[in-house]
Amino acid sequence: MSHNTFGKNLRFTSFGESHGSTIGCVLDGFPPGMPITPEEIKHELRRRATGRSKHTSQRREQDDVQIVSGVFEGVTTGHPIALIIENTDAKSKDYSNIATQIRPGHGDYSYWKKYGIRDYRGGGRSSARETTMRVAAGALAKKWLKKQHGIEITAWLSQIGDIQLQAGDLSKIDDSPFFTGEINRVPELEEFMHKLRKSGDSVGAAISAKAVNVPAGWGEPVYGKLDAELALAMMSINATKGVDIGAGFDSVAQSGSVHRDEIIDGEFQSNHAGGILAGISTGQDITLKVAFKPTSSLRLPAQSINEAGEPVTVVTKGRHDPCVGIRAAPIVEAMMALVLMDHGLRHHAQINSNQHTFE
Amino acid sequence: MSHNTFGKNLRFTSFGESHGSTIGCVLDGFPPGMPITPEEIKHELRRRATGRSKHTSQRREQDDVQIVSGVFEGVTTGHPIALIIENTDAKSKDYSNIATQIRPGHGDYSYWKKYGIRDYRGGGRSSARETTMRVAAGALAKKWLKKQHGIEITAWLSQIGDIQLQAGDLSKIDDSPFFTGEINRVPELEEFMHKLRKSGDSVGAAISAKAVNVPAGWGEPVYGKLDAELALAMMSINATKGVDIGAGFDSVAQSGSVHRDEIIDGEFQSNHAGGILAGISTGQDITLKVAFKPTSSLRLPAQSINEAGEPVTVVTKGRHDPCVGIRAAPIVEAMMALVLMDHGLRHHAQINSNQHTFE
Amino acid sequence: MSHNTFGKNLRFTSFGESHGSTIGCVLDGFPPGMPITPEEIKHELRRRATGRSKHTSQRREQDDVQIVSGVFEGVTTGHPIALIIENTDAKSKDYSNIATQIRPGHGDYSYWKKYGIRDYRGGGRSSARETTMRVAAGALAKKWLKKQHGIEITAWLSQIGDIQLQAGDLSKIDDSPFFTGEINRVPELEEFMHKLRKSGDSVGAAISAKAVNVPAGWGEPVYGKLDAELALAMMSINATKGVDIGAGFDSVAQSGSVHRDEIIDGEFQSNHAGGILAGISTGQDITLKVAFKPTSSLRLPAQSINEAGEPVTVVTKGRHDPCVGIRAAPIVEAMMALVLMDHGLRHHAQINSNQHTFE
Amino acid sequence: MSHNTFGKNLRFTSFGESHGSTIGCVLDGFPPGMPITPEEIKHELRRRATGRSKHTSQRREQDDVQIVSGVFEGVTTGHPIALIIENTDAKSKDYSNIATQIRPGHGDYSYWKKYGIRDYRGGGRSSARETTMRVAAGALAKKWLKKQHGIEITAWLSQIGDIQLQAGDLSKIDDSPFFTGEINRVPELEEFMHKLRKSGDSVGAAISAKAVNVPAGWGEPVYGKLDAELALAMMSINATKGVDIGAGFDSVAQSGSVHRDEIIDGEFQSNHAGGILAGISTGQDITLKVAFKPTSSLRLPAQSINEAGEPVTVVTKGRHDPCVGIRAAPIVEAMMALVLMDHGLRHHAQINSNQHTFE
Repeated sequence: MSHNTFGKNLRFTSFGESHGSTIGCVLDGFPPGMPITPEEIKHELRRRATGRSKHTSQRREQDDVQIVSGVFEGVTTGHPIALIIENTDAKSKDYSNIATQIRPGHGDYSYWKKYGIRDYRGGGRSSARETTMRVAAGALAKKWLKKQHGIEITAWLSQIGDIQLQAGDLSKIDDSPFFTGEINRVPELEEFMHKLRKSGDSVGAAISAKAVNVPAGWGEPVYGKLDAELALAMMSINATKGVDIGAGFDSVAQSGSVHRDEIIDGEFQSNHAGGILAGISTGQDITLKVAFKPTSSLRLPAQSINEAGEPVTVVTKGRHDPCVGIRAAPIVEAMMALVLMDHGLRHHAQINSNQHTFE
Repeated sequence: MSHNTFGKNLRFTSFGESHGSTIGCVLDGFPPGMPITPEEIKHELRRRATGRSKHTSQRREQDDVQIVSGVFEGVTTGHPIALIIENTDAKSKDYSNIATQIRPGHGDYSYWKKYGIRDYRGGGRSSARETTMRVAAGALAKKWLKKQHGIEITAWLSQIGDIQLQAGDLSKIDDSPFFTGEINRVPELEEFMHKLRKSGDSVGAAISAKAVNVPAGWGEPVYGKLDAELALAMMSINATKGVDIGAGFDSVAQSGSVHRDEIIDGEFQSNHAGGILAGISTGQDITLKVAFKPTSSLRLPAQSINEAGEPVTVVTKGRHDPCVGIRAAPIVEAMMALVLMDHGLRHHAQINSNQHTFE
Repeated sequence: MSHNTFGKNLRFTSFGESHGSTIGCVLDGFPPGMPITPEEIKHELRRRATGRSKHTSQRREQDDVQIVSGVFEGVTTGHPIALIIENTDAKSKDYSNIATQIRPGHGDYSYWKKYGIRDYRGGGRSSARETTMRVAAGALAKKWLKKQHGIEITAWLSQIGDIQLQAGDLSKIDDSPFFTGEINRVPELEEFMHKLRKSGDSVGAAISAKAVNVPAGWGEPVYGKLDAELALAMMSINATKGVDIGAGFDSVAQSGSVHRDEIIDGEFQSNHAGGILAGISTGQDITLKVAFKPTSSLRLPAQSINEAGEPVTVVTKGRHDPCVGIRAAPIVEAMMALVLMDHGLRHHAQINSNQHTFE
Repeated sequence: MSHNTFGKNLRFTSFGESHGSTIGCVLDGFPPGMPITPEEIKHELRRRATGRSKHTSQRREQDDVQIVSGVFEGVTTGHPIALIIENTDAKSKDYSNIATQIRPGHGDYSYWKKYGIRDYRGGGRSSARETTMRVAAGALAKKWLKKQHGIEITAWLSQIGDIQLQAGDLSKIDDSPFFTGEINRVPELEEFMHKLRKSGDSVGAAISAKAVNVPAGWGEPVYGKLDAELALAMMSINATKGVDIGAGFDSVAQSGSVHRDEIIDGEFQSNHAGGILAGISTGQDITLKVAFKPTSSLRLPAQSINEAGEPVTVVTKGRHDPCVGIRAAPIVEAMMALVLMDHGLRHHAQINSNQHTFE
């Protein structure tokens, strides 16, 4: 049917549709004793928000998140933390003319085939609106990882269309709407987006990310590997088509003598592994890259069918991002945080569980 | 600690180490009523086996699989199917000289950091020996998918080092040890491998795969998406570093008007989506690609440390594949089969669950 | 930490504290296509509500449930159904004087020891307020079971203190606040409760329940047995101390020749098994009984400690039921419905999964 | 279909049929670093074994358990521990005459209805033979609980037919085949069993159990409560019909002023709660009681049907226990150990996860 929970020891469950009254999530398994405020969550939500620049959808949601459970006197209690946001700027009428149309490249076709019923308003459950709750929950996971282990997670735009971008100065990624550390290339990106928007077309993007200070030993072989669960997490984000861990697909053409990260004087000499060996963290930076496909909702007409199977020409006039990947950086960070915290909690279980002094 | 179960409705649990007495698995949730024989499983095991050609490890396991439960009078009963194989050609002495060495690029470092104890014989639990059981269980899933839905899964070598390979004639992939349908290029591959083996180095590989005849509607949004669970499955295989679904990373540079698969006369005009939209199958071929890193065990010396933290030079003399990816095709097929069957069973639950005639 | 999800294919997750702003739940895995209205849910909530009679807590919640996701144009979509209720009559000041006291027989002691932090207002997360959401979700499961399979579930009061009650006319259980089919004994129960309330003390209760028309074949051996999951469900309800399936503890003194339910002319001659053999339904009525302990919150003083470990005398003045078991019947029904629907969905998976015609 | 895994962080999966070649289990999530030997497991298996006295089935299995994975040089590695036992004394011919008969009170009917196929030999998967593996895995959990926390678990016979037994001297329970601490009443029990066996009939039994030294704070509200998971565990054992926690069903007739366990001078004055409040351990003894139904396999004829629906008279001549509950004590101990260790591991996760020093 559907499966809306992610994680094992830290379990995140989201609910809500793009144009429903409310979206929300439940974060279960979060330890007691950590102070949290709605403002900390809103800080992350603003990073993800639409309407931040002219390059993203102009839907403007307040994302006024409420913490409705699991926190008492400002501190987590160990009980499920429910977060809810009321949708305020859902313009369902934008979609009424395409209620029975199957938009190419969207979940319309597969949802219709699977469920026989479809909330067509803005993609319903398949909308990226759902990722708001990932970012909200991720804000709590990021705080815990930072406080408990000094872990910091950063995601940045590393490719848009055929433009490649380096990490640059990652402290600058929030200074532009492009989540790039190559801040001097922002004008180039602005120009690129300007032309793209005029063309009516869209492009894909790649987001790279890293987590620093992850302790060695996190990850559960062989079906709860850290890299495998990161791949699951990334591929669960809307519009993703590929995931690299460390050197990723580039490792295919590498030789083993180059790829294997040698250790000299106790220091790894490279990090092609992306900080993960055999599914377990090594203490090096965890690095990954995620491919996002181009937006499918375009004002350029596309051939498709309607629910009656008749040919239709689909033209989308709603508010859409010409490159959905631009805003994906905070979502990638959030999912990385949820995966890492989940593994951190599992690893903590081991620490006190095998210090035997057997005779 | 460890997490050795994969799947939700069809649950696969494996156990055993490379040089332990026995490896095995339990496949739980398999429907009753399907005839199976050990020979059908052995057929798939032989496709994966080492020692098939001079290009793979020379360890020769009989892989004499026994079905010890869940089958009565040759037919599945609906109860857990346990499969076991006794290890017969485990040469543990090969490894004794490196018992305390940390081999670069292997799980030695991370296992040691995590567990504080390590079965160093042939990689212990982190060895690809474990994938034998995936192939064994996958043989049953493949049969069920074929019989119940006509689904067929094929994986082939699409890149080795910097050599790109097309699908070619996929009916020929078992005719060479390279799992390639470009059968006329086998001499070129032989030559490549010959030089590689002489160099003492290794290379990575990419395996592509497709499943045909998967019905539309399989997959569970939003955290049990078909593509996300395929990514988890692929990234759980030893030595994987990347996963593409459909156009994968190539979709980053595509324009939306190209990527979205338009429908004319009821037919999709392309399949950049890889048969999955919003996490649910569309009825098109499911396509994916997996990156395998180069083998790390080389006779070329590498700098590393031992468990005392002292610098050591590691030279591996055991029996290893110069390109582990070559043999990965049957493993990719098996994992694809386990994921698809799991989703098939979940989807079947829906079929009889929502044919309401409500007034 | 905490684990707030119940069920495998139908997953129910609840959140919220007794005196928090909002309580709610997410019901994931519900099939698409079933019409539901808030009014249907409210009907069940009123059956459970406090303040219905003078024998229950006088807290009066409107329980104005909102369906905030998973339903489109009045019909389920197959996506997570989130239900939320705002708490309106939470009188937290009632509890301020006992903020640091450990009330005997409550979760105060164990929550304090586990979490080190405690929402003392009305029991916080450990309050029976949480069961409101079970009843809400159970209303949907009951409807599905009825429509899809004709299954009906009824729970009634079978013991209160030392008063034993027969099933009587179960169509009458909603005619009194006692959930009894022995409607002519209501005056006796009123008298009993009157004396009890005057005494300041409390008593326990037993609730019996049955489900009729459950098809044979539901249940998953050996760790997803129908009876075992019913026991888990019942024992998860606040204040429960025991569960009987079928003849339950009475079967200890039975002889095997009596207990085993013989079949004559195709009909079971008795139902000591409670409709479940080896964890799987037989098609007979599913029957069970649940023991509820007496309310621990009394105006009669009790010796205890505070969080500083100092001796205190606890006197509870809040609004409490002198017999919590009285209102438990709808909760037992709801949990039974959630378990049965979960198993129904799992069973449906099998129906289409093993109709092989193998040659 | 079937669900053969128990536990969340410590996951136990069993496989095998009564008269299959092999039974076994996989214990996943067990911490590294604990020495174990087959002999320690065999010690517990002998306590459960049939053929120990004339009061139990005369099937004599060697139960020569092999540890085939997860242990290296005698010490657990943190990887899945697989245990297997080859069946040696399975006399399948005993059952051939009843291959198509539905034995009343057994899983024959429900398995047949569910699966349409049935391993009729000795009950197949529904046989109590499966509990051998629970006891084997339980032996490891008991050792861990003892070493890590000083926890000790003891189960004893507290009722057989209508004979009630006190705990007596629990250090003596292994001195007779009756698992009773009332060692002076063994002659009475012998006499009772002698008459019972002559009658050809059977009786039920109740097993009581306690765990001492369980730390406060174990258990996960609200759907992973310690008592609820104990109830699930107990009800998953063959032939169980009821579970009491603490005062259990007796609490129905108790008054609240008696039931609630007051604290004077820091000491609980009673333990009606059975060591669990709101699903979390209090540090008091965990106490429970389990009801076992009488054996259904009797030489006394019973009316039933065969798989063709025709009336048959069933007479069972195989080797059966006249009171299955007698041997259940070690199984109850094992399941209690698995539940407690699972919760212990979950609790350990919390210990290092919330010691924040937030400014």
